[in-house]
Amino acid sequence: MNQNISFRVELKEDYDRAVEKVTAALKEEGFGVLTEVNVKETLKKKIDADFRRYIIMGACNPPLAHKALSSEPLVGLLLPCNVTVEEAGEGSLVNIVNPIQMLAGFPAFAGNTDVTAVAEDAHARLARVAKALEA
Amino acid sequence: MNQNISFRVELKEDYDRAVEKVTAALKEEGFGVLTEVNVKETLKKKIDADFRRYIIMGACNPPLAHKALSSEPLVGLLLPCNVTVEEAGEGSLVNIVNPIQMLAGFPAFAGNTDVTAVAEDAHARLARVAKALEA
Repeated sequence: MNQNISFRVELKEDYDRAVEKVTAALKEEGFGVLTEVNVKETLKKKIDADFRRYIIMGACNPPLAHKALSSEPLVGLLLPCNVTVEEAGEGSLVNIVNPIQMLAGFPAFAGNTDVTAVAEDAHARLARVAKALEA
Repeated sequence: MNQNISFRVELKEDYDRAVEKVTAALKEEGFGVLTEVNVKETLKKKIDADFRRYIIMGACNPPLAHKALSSEPLVGLLLPCNVTVEEAGEGSLVNIVNPIQMLAGFPAFAGNTDVTAVAEDAHARLARVAKALEA
């Protein structure tokens, strides 16, 4: 079991291509990208700070989200699942949040078997996303 | 120190008014709403499931985000700060994530004083948001 905060994948592809590839790999496991924070553009616009190309994508698997939210509405505080892509040299760095570790900070959720089952399912799917990206 | 997952505020205002009020209170503390997931609409559209009115707003204070991301890029996995608003009877229920508890699940961040300082600052600001909403 991966106990890190994220699944980390280094890609040879440049940033734009990496974002496309990650989006497609998430879709294969039933995750749509519901939100996007373009960190570079946001920091430039809001506080005139320079930052490398970096995006935070919010990925959601609707049946899993529905099951978790129906059982424990506070789970919305941890949704959607974040996936970051950033430029790294000629290539890109991808980090996909580990849903089981996300819950670890919140003992109140650990006793909810619906929530833990969803986290385990999401973990397995996101692990396959990472593996597909590495292929 | 609040050790719960969130600052919880019950509002007499209905859902639409609550979303407006929360957005304005966040702005007072330097948080813009960068993302919104309309849970009710998303679940209806994607899997034809019925759910009450419930929104997940992603709130970001750009100077704090910049400081944290510059020190530890993985912090993007926890950003933006989620704020949920849902209908509850005639009124609404608001939950604002507790940034210090968000970090608690990730010991790797606990040793980074830039990150913990940002979390403490964000915690103080979001506590004031909750207090303003309760007033």
